[in-house]
Amino acid sequence: MIVDCALYRDGKRTEHAGHWRDLRAEAVRGGGFVWIGMHEPGPEEIREVAEVFGLHPLAVEDAVQAHQRPKLERYEDTVFLVLKTLWYVDAEDAVETGEIAMFVGDDFVVTVRHGQGNELHTARVELESSRKVLSHGPGGVLYAVIDRVVDEYLDVVDELEVDVDEIEESVFSTERTNDSTRIYVLKRELAEVRRAVLPLREPVSRLASGTVPSVPDDATPFFRDVADHLARAAETVDSLDSLLSTAFDAHLAQISVQQNDDMRKISAGAAIIVVPTLIAGIYGMNFDHMPELGWSYGYPFALLLMAAVAGGLWAWFKKSGWL
Amino acid sequence: MIVDCALYRDGKRTEHAGHWRDLRAEAVRGGGFVWIGMHEPGPEEIREVAEVFGLHPLAVEDAVQAHQRPKLERYEDTVFLVLKTLWYVDAEDAVETGEIAMFVGDDFVVTVRHGQGNELHTARVELESSRKVLSHGPGGVLYAVIDRVVDEYLDVVDELEVDVDEIEESVFSTERTNDSTRIYVLKRELAEVRRAVLPLREPVSRLASGTVPSVPDDATPFFRDVADHLARAAETVDSLDSLLSTAFDAHLAQISVQQNDDMRKISAGAAIIVVPTLIAGIYGMNFDHMPELGWSYGYPFALLLMAAVAGGLWAWFKKSGWL
Amino acid sequence: MIVDCALYRDGKRTEHAGHWRDLRAEAVRGGGFVWIGMHEPGPEEIREVAEVFGLHPLAVEDAVQAHQRPKLERYEDTVFLVLKTLWYVDAEDAVETGEIAMFVGDDFVVTVRHGQGNELHTARVELESSRKVLSHGPGGVLYAVIDRVVDEYLDVVDELEVDVDEIEESVFSTERTNDSTRIYVLKRELAEVRRAVLPLREPVSRLASGTVPSVPDDATPFFRDVADHLARAAETVDSLDSLLSTAFDAHLAQISVQQNDDMRKISAGAAIIVVPTLIAGIYGMNFDHMPELGWSYGYPFALLLMAAVAGGLWAWFKKSGWL
Amino acid sequence: MIVDCALYRDGKRTEHAGHWRDLRAEAVRGGGFVWIGMHEPGPEEIREVAEVFGLHPLAVEDAVQAHQRPKLERYEDTVFLVLKTLWYVDAEDAVETGEIAMFVGDDFVVTVRHGQGNELHTARVELESSRKVLSHGPGGVLYAVIDRVVDEYLDVVDELEVDVDEIEESVFSTERTNDSTRIYVLKRELAEVRRAVLPLREPVSRLASGTVPSVPDDATPFFRDVADHLARAAETVDSLDSLLSTAFDAHLAQISVQQNDDMRKISAGAAIIVVPTLIAGIYGMNFDHMPELGWSYGYPFALLLMAAVAGGLWAWFKKSGWL
Amino acid sequence: MIVDCALYRDGKRTEHAGHWRDLRAEAVRGGGFVWIGMHEPGPEEIREVAEVFGLHPLAVEDAVQAHQRPKLERYEDTVFLVLKTLWYVDAEDAVETGEIAMFVGDDFVVTVRHGQGNELHTARVELESSRKVLSHGPGGVLYAVIDRVVDEYLDVVDELEVDVDEIEESVFSTERTNDSTRIYVLKRELAEVRRAVLPLREPVSRLASGTVPSVPDDATPFFRDVADHLARAAETVDSLDSLLSTAFDAHLAQISVQQNDDMRKISAGAAIIVVPTLIAGIYGMNFDHMPELGWSYGYPFALLLMAAVAGGLWAWFKKSGWL
Repeated sequence: MIVDCALYRDGKRTEHAGHWRDLRAEAVRGGGFVWIGMHEPGPEEIREVAEVFGLHPLAVEDAVQAHQRPKLERYEDTVFLVLKTLWYVDAEDAVETGEIAMFVGDDFVVTVRHGQGNELHTARVELESSRKVLSHGPGGVLYAVIDRVVDEYLDVVDELEVDVDEIEESVFSTERTNDSTRIYVLKRELAEVRRAVLPLREPVSRLASGTVPSVPDDATPFFRDVADHLARAAETVDSLDSLLSTAFDAHLAQISVQQNDDMRKISAGAAIIVVPTLIAGIYGMNFDHMPELGWSYGYPFALLLMAAVAGGLWAWFKKSGWL
Repeated sequence: MIVDCALYRDGKRTEHAGHWRDLRAEAVRGGGFVWIGMHEPGPEEIREVAEVFGLHPLAVEDAVQAHQRPKLERYEDTVFLVLKTLWYVDAEDAVETGEIAMFVGDDFVVTVRHGQGNELHTARVELESSRKVLSHGPGGVLYAVIDRVVDEYLDVVDELEVDVDEIEESVFSTERTNDSTRIYVLKRELAEVRRAVLPLREPVSRLASGTVPSVPDDATPFFRDVADHLARAAETVDSLDSLLSTAFDAHLAQISVQQNDDMRKISAGAAIIVVPTLIAGIYGMNFDHMPELGWSYGYPFALLLMAAVAGGLWAWFKKSGWL
Repeated sequence: MIVDCALYRDGKRTEHAGHWRDLRAEAVRGGGFVWIGMHEPGPEEIREVAEVFGLHPLAVEDAVQAHQRPKLERYEDTVFLVLKTLWYVDAEDAVETGEIAMFVGDDFVVTVRHGQGNELHTARVELESSRKVLSHGPGGVLYAVIDRVVDEYLDVVDELEVDVDEIEESVFSTERTNDSTRIYVLKRELAEVRRAVLPLREPVSRLASGTVPSVPDDATPFFRDVADHLARAAETVDSLDSLLSTAFDAHLAQISVQQNDDMRKISAGAAIIVVPTLIAGIYGMNFDHMPELGWSYGYPFALLLMAAVAGGLWAWFKKSGWL
Repeated sequence: MIVDCALYRDGKRTEHAGHWRDLRAEAVRGGGFVWIGMHEPGPEEIREVAEVFGLHPLAVEDAVQAHQRPKLERYEDTVFLVLKTLWYVDAEDAVETGEIAMFVGDDFVVTVRHGQGNELHTARVELESSRKVLSHGPGGVLYAVIDRVVDEYLDVVDELEVDVDEIEESVFSTERTNDSTRIYVLKRELAEVRRAVLPLREPVSRLASGTVPSVPDDATPFFRDVADHLARAAETVDSLDSLLSTAFDAHLAQISVQQNDDMRKISAGAAIIVVPTLIAGIYGMNFDHMPELGWSYGYPFALLLMAAVAGGLWAWFKKSGWL
Repeated sequence: MIVDCALYRDGKRTEHAGHWRDLRAEAVRGGGFVWIGMHEPGPEEIREVAEVFGLHPLAVEDAVQAHQRPKLERYEDTVFLVLKTLWYVDAEDAVETGEIAMFVGDDFVVTVRHGQGNELHTARVELESSRKVLSHGPGGVLYAVIDRVVDEYLDVVDELEVDVDEIEESVFSTERTNDSTRIYVLKRELAEVRRAVLPLREPVSRLASGTVPSVPDDATPFFRDVADHLARAAETVDSLDSLLSTAFDAHLAQISVQQNDDMRKISAGAAIIVVPTLIAGIYGMNFDHMPELGWSYGYPFALLLMAAVAGGLWAWFKKSGWL
């Protein structure tokens, strides 16, 4: 589905409305460039676009199929870029992924988006309000899209940082929590983020080095800025991942310590019952001569003795930290 | 055994049938190239082929012996490629491996296949239906074979992804499962896949860089595509492997937690028996003056007391999560 | 807020006082350079400065927002450097972080500091007292600031080394300590330090290689010295981190050993109670012919027997290290 | 001790017998080259050889002392190579190591062997039967020796693979085995192999690149073949090592699971004894009115009750998998 | 303190005695070079030397302060090298560290040593006896010192290898040893060694490449030899470190296995006491009709029964490996 389509000239959106073919013709004739935004296009739609703009079949296949690795390919005059998009779904504490494929030529940009999140509409609106970026032409669009996607990476990473903080608190709380499942899930999500971020670094650093056509030289500082954001995202992910590993180890230690505490608690409890049992056993012996048996208060004495021993043990274990 | 043999000219299979020597002579005379497909050839067969096409003895030895590492070697005019093939056997949840060795010259391709899986027949059929790829000559065959093999890598990796998901579920289920064996087996299979995928990356990237003879320049995008698939396979394998490690750690934590739970359950059970035993011991004492002993309902009272204490403990342990 | 501002000429601070614009004009006219020091400037202040010195908008944005990665960027004539500052808060055994952004041109230096620690005043005073460094111009200021920041890294690392020593002692003491929390916190702080140190190495090595403008050639040994200090900080952090990992493993082993000791202690204690209980049970049997029961000293004999058995067990367990 | 010495000319061993000095003179005069094979030579012997062939003192020292790292050094006209030899001693399931040092000049090869295994006699015999390799001159001898040594690496690695399979079986068997010692020993042996294999890769790849004198260009495919075998050995060793790590983890998990099983078994056994004890305690109470005590069959009834309870518990635990 | 000072000319020590200033003047006038050896010099001493030889202030500061990283710096005509020295103190099984800083110019060498071990006197004596090395001038001294220091690294590593062997034996002995402390200490010492060895590799390889002034070309084989020794030290340290990690894991496994053994021993012991207690309980029941109670030998029979049951259990547990 074609979501939006416009002709940009001299750093602003023109008022031409109409079919994208006409806009394209207009761009070729009078300068400027066309940006066609598609969302999960059908085979017919994409075929038509590919034909008009001369897109390479392999790239088109990749753009349609989704589930690609982030990459930047050059096919003659066209630059083909695949990006993973990420967004954080609060309701499920989960990271969702989508994909954007971009074809960037001298006088056109075609974006193909998969998945629900990261709609490009906001990126387009922001771009249209920034004449400076827009004046860089298709390269400016490239920047605007990558910048927005990478900013969302940073948002997602921030959310995951919060999750890690929560897990940390839970691990070191005195409550008995089974954090291994949450740690596992979070590690899995970090791996997801890493799969989006890491392979994108090489394309962005190529864009920042100014060796990619369609990217004017004075646009490279912008891509260096994006590269820097990507590096920050990657470093934070690595650092969270290693924190989680440490937290997991601490969790294991915690389990062991708790088991030890339990064992001591149980043993103390057992002692408090077993010692009075021994006393009862003693007064259950059948010796002919056992003076206590004949005492009037022998029975209460025995019960008191048991209670005293049990209480003494209790106090002692309490003091030595076993209970 | 020679499985198939044909002369390709102008992007299509010619109708010549006959001995491969005649086809070869025909290719030399009139252009085009011959593709000879062999399956676990005997020493005599391969010797004959090697002689005619001038294959290097070391390469021939490697092709016959199997159990080679994936590699790309150049011997004067001939390119020699070794590939590991992988396929997933559902019945055993296991990954099987085979091997394909290819000799690619200017006017011939010789493929030598070992193992049952990944027959090249389908690759040949597909190739024959794609005039575009076929028109790249021997380089096109090289692409068709590698592409098919790498696609099977991705299939195998997908299957292993499913296996990892199953293990994950099993680890985090409340059932008592001994997952370490399965995790071990899966890690072993991932290592197998890695052994096929990783060493192939360097040859494919050389093919994609256009520095290998027999690969025309306009074929490099195809090899870049394959390189990309390989990278995806490698990344997924790494990511699965590290997930499995995390899952294994979680499994260890689970075992510890279960042991702790068991210990508490056992202790609670013991307390429920031991406390009534103490009561029985008390009423088994031989004091002369124990009023309860003379009560008409002393015995039922004692039994009730035991039952009440046991029940009370049971309820208490239940409430505090020990039972 | 502009904290300090001065014009430096011929290796010393001039006596000009007045608005920074005047100083700048003076520097342009008569040689020398201006150093403007700002602390968490407002948007208006920074905008004004940026305008006068022609600072790149992206750099200004980074300088204002803080939370950047350490980096060195060149924007035409201006060098832009971001540094993380670290200081150790004794009261909390914690590492705090701040940030310094520097713009270095031919005739000016603008420093923008965030956070409480590492005020640059001392760096400025030291610099002013060293004519030699100051005579290197803006590059000398660059060196003075980086040198001071990196020296503080080394101080922080020294403090962390002390913390690791304490943890080590605690882990291997015979006391029952739960060190996993402290180890975790310390690992987190090491990660913080690493995040400041590692990304700074590349900028500093670029400065030391003499390829950055504003850094005169004879200043490179100074930057090589800083690079060396950075390398030392990085190596120490890595080494501490791996020591902590080993210490954590040892802590786990310690927990296991303690659990084992506890279990044996508990079992020995149980045996000391259970064996007398068996004796009491024996003399509680109702056989008609049990000679001991008729003895005058049967009861004391039984009690003594119990005490002797308990004492014997106690001695035996003591000797074999179970108690 | 000089073990063998011969003059090779035109790809075959000449019939000259006599002192090596004469053979050398003959080679200088009439072409060809001399191969002197020494086994743990005395200082006098090696001094003489070094003098005649002009070997560098540092290299000679290394050749005599053994315990060197594998390396390839060039001293003017002479190439000096050190190799570790490995062989597997079945009787002890152990890997033994030796060393070979080679001096390769234009018209001579001197080999110095340490340790018992990998005698070079077979390499020499094989070489003498292969005119093609021999015709490469001293470079051919270099190849023959390295090839044989590396082939033995592969044999050793195969044996270790079998050992790993055995350990794997043992770890996952239901028997209680203490595999940690065996895993440790095997890891140690893998480290030994790695120490022989890894540092040899660089020398062999230099030989394969054709930049070493004494190695004719058309011999490089042979060294590439050796490099490939080395890579295979290194990969297998890495893969075995990481399998062993995983197996060790699984072993730890197994121990935990067994401990858990034991604990449950023990608890079940305890319950089967403790519950009848409670019953005995009840009928040992001294209440005046306990109807069962007066029954004629009270005693057998009580015994039966105990047996029934014990049996019931036994069946229940059996069913729930605790026994 | 200046420890030794001499003028070397034509490969031997001259007989000139006198103040170092005179020797220096003599060297400048008549050729040769001066080697001044200092041990923890005071600020005045070093200042004087620095002035005369024109040493760079930053280098002098590093030489005086000690606690530097190993490094090689060039300051105009002077080469500045920092080395860590290591020695093994048998009495404490500990590795001690010191430091040597060297200034090497065309006609002088200044060595500054910190710490007690590795006195350079022996290096000087050896050097003076080797005319060949000495004839390389200041570069020869550089070699002699580095060679001696690196040889001590190998000695230290050998001692640590012995320590690792001892730990290994202790871990796998059947005795109950708490090896984690020793493993930790040894790992810490390996880290110390690594900190000395690893950063030295780069300087030595630069010296071996012949790109450092003051090192004549024909001296490079000597530095290559040192580089090789360094590589061996580094490899052994890595290998010991990873062996220790494996040993530690095995130690953990051993603890678990021992805990399991203890638990089974304890349970068996408990059973041996608890079953007779049950029997005593049975004969303590108060049924009117219990034939055994009336038997003349009922009491001995009961005792025998208990002993028999206990003995039977003992034998059974013994046989099944629980005791």
